[in-house]
Amino acid sequence: MANLSKNQHKIIRSLTRKKDRNELGLFLVEGDKMVREVLDPLNGGISYQVKSVIGSRDWLASFGGSIPGGTEQYEVGAAELKLLSTLREPNGAIAIVKQMEYRPDFGQIRGCLTLGLENIQDPGNLGSILRIADWFGIRDVFCSGDSVELYNPKVIQSTMGSFLRVRVHYIELPYVITQLQEGDKEAEYFPVFATGSQGVNLYQATLPELGMILLGNESKGLSETVTAKADQTLSIPFQDPDMHPESLNIATATAVLCSEFRRQTGSDE
Amino acid sequence: MANLSKNQHKIIRSLTRKKDRNELGLFLVEGDKMVREVLDPLNGGISYQVKSVIGSRDWLASFGGSIPGGTEQYEVGAAELKLLSTLREPNGAIAIVKQMEYRPDFGQIRGCLTLGLENIQDPGNLGSILRIADWFGIRDVFCSGDSVELYNPKVIQSTMGSFLRVRVHYIELPYVITQLQEGDKEAEYFPVFATGSQGVNLYQATLPELGMILLGNESKGLSETVTAKADQTLSIPFQDPDMHPESLNIATATAVLCSEFRRQTGSDE
Repeated sequence: MANLSKNQHKIIRSLTRKKDRNELGLFLVEGDKMVREVLDPLNGGISYQVKSVIGSRDWLASFGGSIPGGTEQYEVGAAELKLLSTLREPNGAIAIVKQMEYRPDFGQIRGCLTLGLENIQDPGNLGSILRIADWFGIRDVFCSGDSVELYNPKVIQSTMGSFLRVRVHYIELPYVITQLQEGDKEAEYFPVFATGSQGVNLYQATLPELGMILLGNESKGLSETVTAKADQTLSIPFQDPDMHPESLNIATATAVLCSEFRRQTGSDE
Repeated sequence: MANLSKNQHKIIRSLTRKKDRNELGLFLVEGDKMVREVLDPLNGGISYQVKSVIGSRDWLASFGGSIPGGTEQYEVGAAELKLLSTLREPNGAIAIVKQMEYRPDFGQIRGCLTLGLENIQDPGNLGSILRIADWFGIRDVFCSGDSVELYNPKVIQSTMGSFLRVRVHYIELPYVITQLQEGDKEAEYFPVFATGSQGVNLYQATLPELGMILLGNESKGLSETVTAKADQTLSIPFQDPDMHPESLNIATATAVLCSEFRRQTGSDE
């Protein structure tokens, strides 16, 4: 069991910065449950390559056995773990994981429900959206290039592990939409839904099993360019027009939309 | 226009602590938009009494006119505002507001949809739930006594102003449920719904226009005592049983539940 050098400390701490993260092609996964999951993804989960695991003596004693041979292991005390962690209450272990790029399989995605996120800025929102996508069985999510980065530690943390079951593709949305809409000649029609305050009442729209739901920036919403590529715009109606509620948070809106898509097309068992 | 004394600084900063907040019976409202709203609640909003407003010169120049006569006004520079604020980026003004207790009007609440929250711990979750309640026209929310406190600055912040349109009552849930269920003799039946992973599929349940939705602690869910008082337990189905998604966040679950209640009972216009 090795100890961490000063230089390794520096590298780990540098992974909180986007620039360093991308130069090194690495990111952090923290906390007992998520570190165990990234080492051993459940059925169907995405297999990331784990470069190193840094754990407390107790954690390594309990779970060190599941760490593959080629993975570096480091034992650290509680104070050292706290110094390295981005969490207020670090929890057992930190993994340093290799970033991965997955090429979107447009043919396959055309048969599924998917999300297109434009310029989402808040890491907690992206994490929550991925957790919601996971719940509702959405396996591919597209983000415009100016969106917050998946490998931001706050995003990873707030996915609660869903980043292991949902693929995130950074790619310009108009291009993706065209790819999905055009497809090949025999392909079924692929419907695209924008969202905004000036749309059709979600509950009265007829929603398909496959298609794309577009969601926009937290304060500006969807751009006109992206909205124009959609077949229809959906709105979540609010109850009480006299009370002027604040708009719904973007992750909340995503949950309501995904729920209604799945409800309309779900089986009756 | 007065300046703040050292002692006033101390008092304002003490309002981040629950004990001091409750001893003084005050709480903080921060940021341009929410300070303006607490001074001048929109149609139907709750009128809190504002004790003092602390603002930048620009903010007071623009909005000082809307501050009622009896309210203390203090001008502060950017550095002083940052020192006083709980926000990373303080925004224009801070209001010191008197706490308020509203007595629940059980007779009226029996005609509405309401929420019962048991032991919610995360301030952001409570704030998000109130914002969701506001959107879906829920005007009264009950919290068990061990829940996070409404006047926690993070709760107020994450309501985005919805605390001005949703009344929060801290009271033991079994007592409230009994009050609402028993009602008077001529009253309509008041249905109560628990939520959990072992319930009836939400989309297949028949949901009423009025009633109570019970939601439990972030990790433990609802207690057996509270669940036992409900007529039925509802579950939000997930899509893909092979992928073992993490549970939904409590605020996300609230949004999906409220949306489905409102959808089933909404008008068709």
